[in-house]
Amino acid sequence: MIVLGVDPGLKATGYSLLKKKGDNIHLLEAGTIEPKQNDLVQNRIFKIYHNLDIIIQEYKPESLVLEKLYSHTKHPMTSSLLGQVRGVVCLICAQQKIELIELSVKRVRKAITGNGNATKQQVRRLIAHHFDLKETVLKLDASDAAALALGYLQMHMLDSRLKI
Amino acid sequence: MIVLGVDPGLKATGYSLLKKKGDNIHLLEAGTIEPKQNDLVQNRIFKIYHNLDIIIQEYKPESLVLEKLYSHTKHPMTSSLLGQVRGVVCLICAQQKIELIELSVKRVRKAITGNGNATKQQVRRLIAHHFDLKETVLKLDASDAAALALGYLQMHMLDSRLKI
Repeated sequence: MIVLGVDPGLKATGYSLLKKKGDNIHLLEAGTIEPKQNDLVQNRIFKIYHNLDIIIQEYKPESLVLEKLYSHTKHPMTSSLLGQVRGVVCLICAQQKIELIELSVKRVRKAITGNGNATKQQVRRLIAHHFDLKETVLKLDASDAAALALGYLQMHMLDSRLKI
Repeated sequence: MIVLGVDPGLKATGYSLLKKKGDNIHLLEAGTIEPKQNDLVQNRIFKIYHNLDIIIQEYKPESLVLEKLYSHTKHPMTSSLLGQVRGVVCLICAQQKIELIELSVKRVRKAITGNGNATKQQVRRLIAHHFDLKETVLKLDASDAAALALGYLQMHMLDSRLKI
C-alpha cells in the first residue's frame, strides 16, 4: 500500500511517499516542489500540478493525505492562496481516482510525537529518526507531508488491529 | 476578441462569454456550473474544471477574467473554499495558454453601474439591460461573471482609445 502525503503551498509544496508492507513502513521519496517566486500565479500552480502528476504516475499511490481544511483566521489571505494549491491537489485525486484523506494537523502531530501542539521542527526530528535520516536532509514542508502519510498509515494499522 | 468571465464558487461557478467586434460587445453564453452538493469535494472541483474546459474548447477565449483575490476576513473558511475553485481556474489558464486578468470587484461594479458598492442584484439589472435579456434568465453568479468580462472589455476599449 503506497500513500502520498501532501502539504500544499504556493511557495513550496511538500510531498512524501510511504509504502506499507506488513507492519513495516518505508519512505520511498520526500521532497518539495518550489515554483519560481516571480512567475505568474497560474504558472506556479501549473508547476505544482504537473510535478505531482509525474510523481503519481511513477508511484501510483492508492491514497493521498491532506491536512483537513482549516481557516487561518489571522491570515485569511493565506487561506485563499493555500486553497488555490489545495484545489489542484483535489483535482488530481478526482482525475487519477486516488482516495483523498483529510486529517487534522493536531491529530497527526499527536499520533507522531505524542503532542498535538508539537512544532514543525519537532515533527521533522521524529520523522528523520523514524526513517533513519539526517534531519537536515528534510525540508519542513517535506517532513510535514511525511507526517500526514505516516499518521494516516499508523491510524490505519491500529484500525485494522482493533477490527481483528 | 472573446473574453470569459468566471465567478468561482464550490456551490455554483458563474461564467459568461462575451465577444467584442469593433465597438459592439455581444453575449455569447452565460450560465452556472453547479456540482451536486452532497458529492465529494474532489468530484465537485473536477466537475467545475471539466465543464469550464469544455466551454473553453468550444469558444477559445483569448482572456479569462477573475475577481482579484481578496480575503473574506469575516469568513476565512469561505476564502479557503473559493481558493480551491480559483486554483483550478488558474490551472486551466496555464494549460490552455489563456491570458489571466484579475480585476477588483469594486472597480468592475463602478465601471458597470457607476457605483463601486452596487449590489449583485443591481449588477444583474444592468447586465440584463445591456444585453436586452430578462433579468430572471440570469443567475447572480452568471451576471457577476458577465460583469467581469464586460468591465474588462470596456476598460480595454477605453485604454485603446486613450492610446490613439
